Amino acid sequence: MAGSTFGKIFTVTTWGESHGKAVGAVVDGCPAGLPLTEEDIQQMLDRRKPGQNRFTTARKEGDLVEILSGTFEGKTTGTPISLMVRNQDPRSRDYSNIAEVYRPGHADYTFDAKYGFRDYRGGGRSSGRETIGRVAAGAIAEKALAALGIQVQARAVQIGPYPAEDREAVEAFLNQRMSEMDSAGGIVECRITGMPAGIGDPVFEKLDANLAKAVMSIGSVKGVEIGDGFAAAKVCGSQNNDPFRADGTGRIYKTSNHAGGILGGISDGSEIVLRAAFKPTPSIAQMQQTVNRQGENVDIQVKGRHDPIVVNRAVVVVEAMAALVVLDGLLLNMGATMKGIESFYGKGPQD
Amino acid sequence: MAGSTFGKIFTVTTWGESHGKAVGAVVDGCPAGLPLTEEDIQQMLDRRKPGQNRFTTARKEGDLVEILSGTFEGKTTGTPISLMVRNQDPRSRDYSNIAEVYRPGHADYTFDAKYGFRDYRGGGRSSGRETIGRVAAGAIAEKALAALGIQVQARAVQIGPYPAEDREAVEAFLNQRMSEMDSAGGIVECRITGMPAGIGDPVFEKLDANLAKAVMSIGSVKGVEIGDGFAAAKVCGSQNNDPFRADGTGRIYKTSNHAGGILGGISDGSEIVLRAAFKPTPSIAQMQQTVNRQGENVDIQVKGRHDPIVVNRAVVVVEAMAALVVLDGLLLNMGATMKGIESFYGKGPQD
Amino acid sequence: MAGSTFGKIFTVTTWGESHGKAVGAVVDGCPAGLPLTEEDIQQMLDRRKPGQNRFTTARKEGDLVEILSGTFEGKTTGTPISLMVRNQDPRSRDYSNIAEVYRPGHADYTFDAKYGFRDYRGGGRSSGRETIGRVAAGAIAEKALAALGIQVQARAVQIGPYPAEDREAVEAFLNQRMSEMDSAGGIVECRITGMPAGIGDPVFEKLDANLAKAVMSIGSVKGVEIGDGFAAAKVCGSQNNDPFRADGTGRIYKTSNHAGGILGGISDGSEIVLRAAFKPTPSIAQMQQTVNRQGENVDIQVKGRHDPIVVNRAVVVVEAMAALVVLDGLLLNMGATMKGIESFYGKGPQD
Amino acid sequence: MAGSTFGKIFTVTTWGESHGKAVGAVVDGCPAGLPLTEEDIQQMLDRRKPGQNRFTTARKEGDLVEILSGTFEGKTTGTPISLMVRNQDPRSRDYSNIAEVYRPGHADYTFDAKYGFRDYRGGGRSSGRETIGRVAAGAIAEKALAALGIQVQARAVQIGPYPAEDREAVEAFLNQRMSEMDSAGGIVECRITGMPAGIGDPVFEKLDANLAKAVMSIGSVKGVEIGDGFAAAKVCGSQNNDPFRADGTGRIYKTSNHAGGILGGISDGSEIVLRAAFKPTPSIAQMQQTVNRQGENVDIQVKGRHDPIVVNRAVVVVEAMAALVVLDGLLLNMGATMKGIESFYGKGPQD
Repeated sequence: MAGSTFGKIFTVTTWGESHGKAVGAVVDGCPAGLPLTEEDIQQMLDRRKPGQNRFTTARKEGDLVEILSGTFEGKTTGTPISLMVRNQDPRSRDYSNIAEVYRPGHADYTFDAKYGFRDYRGGGRSSGRETIGRVAAGAIAEKALAALGIQVQARAVQIGPYPAEDREAVEAFLNQRMSEMDSAGGIVECRITGMPAGIGDPVFEKLDANLAKAVMSIGSVKGVEIGDGFAAAKVCGSQNNDPFRADGTGRIYKTSNHAGGILGGISDGSEIVLRAAFKPTPSIAQMQQTVNRQGENVDIQVKGRHDPIVVNRAVVVVEAMAALVVLDGLLLNMGATMKGIESFYGKGPQD
Repeated sequence: MAGSTFGKIFTVTTWGESHGKAVGAVVDGCPAGLPLTEEDIQQMLDRRKPGQNRFTTARKEGDLVEILSGTFEGKTTGTPISLMVRNQDPRSRDYSNIAEVYRPGHADYTFDAKYGFRDYRGGGRSSGRETIGRVAAGAIAEKALAALGIQVQARAVQIGPYPAEDREAVEAFLNQRMSEMDSAGGIVECRITGMPAGIGDPVFEKLDANLAKAVMSIGSVKGVEIGDGFAAAKVCGSQNNDPFRADGTGRIYKTSNHAGGILGGISDGSEIVLRAAFKPTPSIAQMQQTVNRQGENVDIQVKGRHDPIVVNRAVVVVEAMAALVVLDGLLLNMGATMKGIESFYGKGPQD
Repeated sequence: MAGSTFGKIFTVTTWGESHGKAVGAVVDGCPAGLPLTEEDIQQMLDRRKPGQNRFTTARKEGDLVEILSGTFEGKTTGTPISLMVRNQDPRSRDYSNIAEVYRPGHADYTFDAKYGFRDYRGGGRSSGRETIGRVAAGAIAEKALAALGIQVQARAVQIGPYPAEDREAVEAFLNQRMSEMDSAGGIVECRITGMPAGIGDPVFEKLDANLAKAVMSIGSVKGVEIGDGFAAAKVCGSQNNDPFRADGTGRIYKTSNHAGGILGGISDGSEIVLRAAFKPTPSIAQMQQTVNRQGENVDIQVKGRHDPIVVNRAVVVVEAMAALVVLDGLLLNMGATMKGIESFYGKGPQD
Repeated sequence: MAGSTFGKIFTVTTWGESHGKAVGAVVDGCPAGLPLTEEDIQQMLDRRKPGQNRFTTARKEGDLVEILSGTFEGKTTGTPISLMVRNQDPRSRDYSNIAEVYRPGHADYTFDAKYGFRDYRGGGRSSGRETIGRVAAGAIAEKALAALGIQVQARAVQIGPYPAEDREAVEAFLNQRMSEMDSAGGIVECRITGMPAGIGDPVFEKLDANLAKAVMSIGSVKGVEIGDGFAAAKVCGSQNNDPFRADGTGRIYKTSNHAGGILGGISDGSEIVLRAAFKPTPSIAQMQQTVNRQGENVDIQVKGRHDPIVVNRAVVVVEAMAALVVLDGLLLNMGATMKGIESFYGKGPQD
């Protein structure tokens, strides 16, 4: 089934394998007239690049994006924006050890179960490189949102069991993982400010439902929460309800934000807060038990350049996916009322 | 935007407000030849009925489902199945207090912000009664899944801060909430057994991504996790990876299931495990601060028959949504390989 | 596959068989605030009723529509509008002759080939009664369009080989068909006035492409054309191109309209013109050759109350489908430019 | 709105402008295991190349396709297939005359009306070069169909007012058009053989409805018909109904095929026949009246290398679009019956 397209009005279709010729995305439904250059996209892509510190892989990746269509004289035309990043480092490597063996925690086995075979080089389509297309599309979405005063900002808030701001504990924890040829997970939080109230569509296209899907579709994510999330299950309604107040100038606000900015699946105008839990990177150099394609029990050590933790690189992916959902929600909401439509098109002959 | 349809091949469109004439659903894309009676659906609907213990609302609801189309001689015909449940207790009540006031934790404010006005009687479309359509559709999906040997089973695993099996603590906790005119949340877990490997479509239509959307689209859900979920963020890769083993008869299994049955967004053949966190019911009789439609600060006490906890009634809704996703995933997967298609249709003229 | 939903933002899902309990539709994505009563819908439904002259079937059908959800205090709420029409005349009839025999020109054989069996009573889902849901939804769409100054108007322009306005020839032709127990086809034309330029989305969601699909999805339609249609294939570019002119007040118009109001799949602001060719009603009382479910050659006479011509009753169905496409196109177009979006939402913090 | 994606299970997303860097397509949902090389696609692309005779444009286009992803070791992997054709001849030309002037019969005016501005070089997105992506995708679809014994074959059947086989009249007609700096249209017919019965989904996803949309979405198409099409409107039911017969070996066939292989929107197992009417190429070097962007009346001569007739080059585009619809229909049909699903997956625990 075609599962590589995301969104309804503003859509992204990603393509490409980690060790094929290129990876890319087609962004369709982007409003015309948005100023857009390759540099706008490159800046966001650079945030997901490895090699930024010693806990991310040492591989050099240029990841230079090329806009192949959809802009003219520096602005989007409303037609599909095709984006491509050549795979610059597909060195001819020996994959024979992983070609025939299912790496634990990876999609090797499930791709074979589904498709009968797979491109085993570097994870193929389930590689982290697929997220390049997401991030490139997210950069465009964030630029459009910024023009409406909406900011999307993600950051790592937990590394393994430690709060990300407890840097010493985090560094010690990661050093320990590396020395043990092991890996770590963590939590990314994303906050969206400047949201108008009213975005999201009952009952299946709720804003939080689409955010959950968007974030859970990122590799290694095992949990998503909005606002207080799982913690909300423990408290009382009187603690969890956010009181509304009026500030006297016509603005309505909430005095707390346990809901994370969404009520009944629709934005309430306060900050949107979501968190995504990432499992530890499954690629570890320790000896592990597994099975090969012939159905024999074997041992495997996953060698190569792997991040012991993907959370830092995943931050921008979470941000990109959230931006895609929010922009699509804004576009979908424009026809919500007759009043809005009549104001947009005029009320007919009498105008 | 049309947000009331869920699914791609097997779809459900729900409709209806809590205090309108009826609620219902249209299930489209159901395979022909499934034996189906109103009783099949009624049994599952009865599991969400209130009045089953003293912590659920005292309201009598018959909730008798009527199949209006799509079956013939006791079997589905492949055409849309229209299901309706009349609202039997829309007593003409005085809603004037909530008509003009935004209940904290409810969708009153956001519906008004989106649509300009709303059906304020009993929550309108954001009422829990909307889930009747989901459950009715889920009953059909579960019946189709059962024919393939797949079982979907949900249960409450946490009530407020207590494990559901700690009944004494739970009862004391809920009694305390009721005496304080307060409410409680909890966690529902859903397990799916008998799944073939290979279901789910990279990269945006992953099985876990669609499960996350399905469950997050249920009112009051604030978090979703698959397998170990948020706990996975804290551990090491060597702890979290599930080793594969072969049993010597051709079957491949995992010796643990931290992944919750999904790798790379595709089912791995082991049990699927997901959890949903429900916030406490926002309707509480305590005095709360809020704002009215005129933008004035007011106090509100939400009166009426409300569950102090929705978790027990929501169990079957989670189960229904999971069943819809799994069945749709199975149908979408049928065209994954040329081999499967050729076997289904025959290989052409030579046949 | 779920094939009973039409549209992207403004959608209709139809359900129901000719001789089941009821037929109906769920209209989702209707903008909030549209004044709507059952009478608005009934008026359009009455236009497709049989029994209006002696060339349509004598069957009495009340076809009274009931709005089950989605309106409140006389206006649409933005939530799904469920519409139902009870089947009032499903008299227990003897279908044994058609249950086992494939009527030529009907969908009996193809439904059996697809689903393994079918509801054979009166054509089941392929009956003309399915169009009740389309017409009811179209009535809502036309009302929303009227608020924007857009009118959709269909009429029969050809009956058999004769222009519809040549009434004497038409009456003689139809009398002849009836006396021979035969049937006739014809052509319906639909014109849409008041259209703004810019509606329709390149390259697959062109306005004419969606109109073609909408109209071809009506039973018995075998051809669709826009503007001059097939006649355009015969002439020269210099004859077929419509010159643009400016009227000096800022308005741009065309001095001819061979294009039928659509250029490059996008409305050009002039009248939209489309035509649909209907085949003759396949139900005829003449003896015909066919095959039964057992694969034996048999003869069949299709008895019962059948229109010798469906064109007159189909006029309103063509109109309804065109209205659905146009309204959906208007809603989809609202996010076409950054300028439009910024004007709708405001340009952010500085506002 | 995102309008550049076509299909539900097997999808194509096209991108690119005539004078940008490249044009291309992403084909998603292609079944895994289909042998596929660039040569397979190139052969079909070559059929739409200009310069094949003196009535098509003299422009040299290599149009060499590159597969960027989705295949491995010569077979499709089930992941998105990214296809790109560089624009080799985007010579820096003087577009100033058409940049500011709306060519009659073109999409210049409607793109400006929709998006506020456009890439005016060579028609931008509304150029015939967009069809490269369609044809490339169609080549893949045709290869998959061939493996199932299904052949799709299109050809020109009418050039201007003359049957295509009347070569002398056609040549004289086209010579006359060229000498008058004028252009011609025509009709393309497409036939699909080897179809199983049962493909197409009532009531909106009928096979003919999707074929109509597919074909009408091709630039310059103004009409579509299935089987006898518009001619069917003139005859009697007794002439138009196709009798069924059994051949004694279990096969059911029709003794005529006025229906064009589709009954009730579902394939009946006989040959599918459709025709598309193309208007004359709007680009003509004659002087024409039009308007410029400033809203002034001006005259225009459209210079440059233009085909006086696009019908011959469009043949393969019609064929490609038909192939996409048919393959998608086959995939969507696989879940039509419980029997088929149970046979595909096994009937559960007892297996």
